[in-house]
Amino acid sequence: MTMDAIDVIVTKRDGRELSAEQIDWVVDAYTRGVVADEQMSALAMAILLNGMNRREIAGWTQAMIRSGTRMDWSSLPGRTTDKHSTGGVGDKITLPLAPLVAACGGYVPQLSGRGLGHTGGTLDKLESIPGWRAYLSPEGMLGVLGEAGAVICAAGDGLAPADKKLYALRDVTGTVESIPLIASSIMSKKIAEGTGALVLDVKVGSGAFMKTVEQARELAATMVELGADAGVSTVALLTAMDRPLGLTVGNALEVTESVEVLAGGGPADVVELTVLMAHEMLRAAGLSGGKDPERALKDGSAMDAWRRMIVAQGGDPDAPLPRAAETLEVTAPASGVLSRLDAYGVGLAAWRLGAGRERKEDPVSFGAGITLHAKPGDPVREGQPLMTLHADDAGRFERALAALEGAYAVGETADADLLPLVIDRITA
Amino acid sequence: MTMDAIDVIVTKRDGRELSAEQIDWVVDAYTRGVVADEQMSALAMAILLNGMNRREIAGWTQAMIRSGTRMDWSSLPGRTTDKHSTGGVGDKITLPLAPLVAACGGYVPQLSGRGLGHTGGTLDKLESIPGWRAYLSPEGMLGVLGEAGAVICAAGDGLAPADKKLYALRDVTGTVESIPLIASSIMSKKIAEGTGALVLDVKVGSGAFMKTVEQARELAATMVELGADAGVSTVALLTAMDRPLGLTVGNALEVTESVEVLAGGGPADVVELTVLMAHEMLRAAGLSGGKDPERALKDGSAMDAWRRMIVAQGGDPDAPLPRAAETLEVTAPASGVLSRLDAYGVGLAAWRLGAGRERKEDPVSFGAGITLHAKPGDPVREGQPLMTLHADDAGRFERALAALEGAYAVGETADADLLPLVIDRITA
Repeated sequence: MTMDAIDVIVTKRDGRELSAEQIDWVVDAYTRGVVADEQMSALAMAILLNGMNRREIAGWTQAMIRSGTRMDWSSLPGRTTDKHSTGGVGDKITLPLAPLVAACGGYVPQLSGRGLGHTGGTLDKLESIPGWRAYLSPEGMLGVLGEAGAVICAAGDGLAPADKKLYALRDVTGTVESIPLIASSIMSKKIAEGTGALVLDVKVGSGAFMKTVEQARELAATMVELGADAGVSTVALLTAMDRPLGLTVGNALEVTESVEVLAGGGPADVVELTVLMAHEMLRAAGLSGGKDPERALKDGSAMDAWRRMIVAQGGDPDAPLPRAAETLEVTAPASGVLSRLDAYGVGLAAWRLGAGRERKEDPVSFGAGITLHAKPGDPVREGQPLMTLHADDAGRFERALAALEGAYAVGETADADLLPLVIDRITA
Repeated sequence: MTMDAIDVIVTKRDGRELSAEQIDWVVDAYTRGVVADEQMSALAMAILLNGMNRREIAGWTQAMIRSGTRMDWSSLPGRTTDKHSTGGVGDKITLPLAPLVAACGGYVPQLSGRGLGHTGGTLDKLESIPGWRAYLSPEGMLGVLGEAGAVICAAGDGLAPADKKLYALRDVTGTVESIPLIASSIMSKKIAEGTGALVLDVKVGSGAFMKTVEQARELAATMVELGADAGVSTVALLTAMDRPLGLTVGNALEVTESVEVLAGGGPADVVELTVLMAHEMLRAAGLSGGKDPERALKDGSAMDAWRRMIVAQGGDPDAPLPRAAETLEVTAPASGVLSRLDAYGVGLAAWRLGAGRERKEDPVSFGAGITLHAKPGDPVREGQPLMTLHADDAGRFERALAALEGAYAVGETADADLLPLVIDRITA
């Protein structure tokens, strides 16, 4: 097939629809290096500004899947089901959720990522557990799944390599914020991962990539359609990310909170969302008749699955987790009610404390982060601790405090525009 | 100054105005390689789709000029004046025009380019003259200008290097067709060239880059404003490029026709446009009181300036020009009036005959091209020659004939929608 990158770019630049052949060719040629980075970035900008329709997005997603291998779990004795969150601040839900669903009869083949900007990454969190390994072969994944019912690991190089290359390009060319490109990036990985069912947690608010409910709804609907087109039973929840989730932000801090949830405790919002997502994952896989997730948290079976999963990936679930050397308390400036606690400000502060990376190649600090002592709506007294900052180096506190400036307020009541924890549910 | 390429891209992507600092930084950083090709191509696409206002275009142009050196002709004993054509088919006007204006008292420091796609390039045409050299140092240019009053040569590497780099990038990323980027590219080179006055010939029609009068008018107005902002006395003519200019298309063929004009003959449209442009160039430079261009064509002084100019650049004005080995006649399919002769079709055919390049590094064939025996409106008899195709290799005729299919027609009268030779005149 004779094709030309400029023709493809010009088609989308001029607001026309890309043909199936154009999409297949350009994704494949880009993966092989025949289409250059500067051509793909111009096309990505044209897509961002002129959009893609449902047919184009589905074709783009399938082309990215075909750039690599699609995993196959048909040798497992049960059904697979997975979740994906678009990322937020304090969003550790995957950690208790994957073993919880395993304890209720699902198999969870979860491929996760690392922190991006002010948002945390599941792999970074789990690596704070001494010995735990993120990198597994497909056979290794199958082994952990068989043993624990759940596995959380990094995607191999063979999985949607076109997406890997395109994602790195979009990151440096101002072309991240395109719903068609975000949706196809997420869904190409999740479909290639081979899960039979999928629940999407689309975060909304200052701490999320989607700032408005409308944007989030559009992204969710696009992804649910892509899942349905690919034969994956898919549902999406829109959930609040205007304030942090739970009471901890930072790698080891979030592991500790996750273990509390698995032990039957933990903050109410984390427990509520974990249980709700577990129900959705089981229902999407046609596994609603099995053990109830609330019971699996109470009877220790979810914790057992967690321990098996961590051990199977080389981790020691009983080892003490890293702690940061320095702490600083932030206190309430007045008495009243914590009216606001901005997710973005808290995420940015945790990032600056060392929980995230400045450059891709930097290590994260496992102990760094923030412990919250109040959430919006909670009564507070002047001078009481609102949060504790944790860092390996006290020199980091100043820039973290600057990020928190204006990020919280004490008033008479919680702000009226706080989002409900679960905003909407989107199905095909 | 701390700046970030992504911030600049996102500003334009989101439809906001780039600040003067952002423009200066991004053009400079791109020239130095700090901003990568894939970032600049994303920005170019955002500019193409979201536009730039007058202030942004002026800043962008100035930043490109500052990326290199600005030439200085103040040591010459007279005023400089130049022209630029946006490119067309059979557009050899620069060849007779530069020496003609020199013969009337102007100094013409013309930096020209090479053929692009179906359009010819002045340097390729002049290189068909044995011995003629396109590459001169600034001192060499000054020498030729002093001797002949006109010089036509290639731009040196020091002239607007940002434009050189950006132009090559736009060429492969589908970002050529942006009026702000076209205008700033042309004007940065012409302003850096140091001319005191400038006449722009903005071509309109199938054989030009601007297909409609509206697009051409917008480009012309933008360039006239940029010239005025930079202190260059600038005027633009919109002229017809729906049919070829003159009766020859191809390098040596066009040199021969240009010499006919300088000898007082030549096709009516080439003579009319050459004389009109000469008047405009002299007027823009405040030199209207000197020798009349029509007289300079008749009394041999324009031809004398041509010969001095060619000799000063190493060429032999009396040497026979290269001729193509093979010819083929295209005859009239019926008797009547040649109603249409499409500039793009003729330009594409000449390109395929070898007058232009397939790849940047290819040589051109000096003898290849097309001689026209009739223009729209001329009466023709069935079987009479309409045009003669010239090529070094008869194998090229088939694809050239395919390009001419549907490009000409014989009817009862010329098509009513033929453009007037001069459509409009735009001043600041």
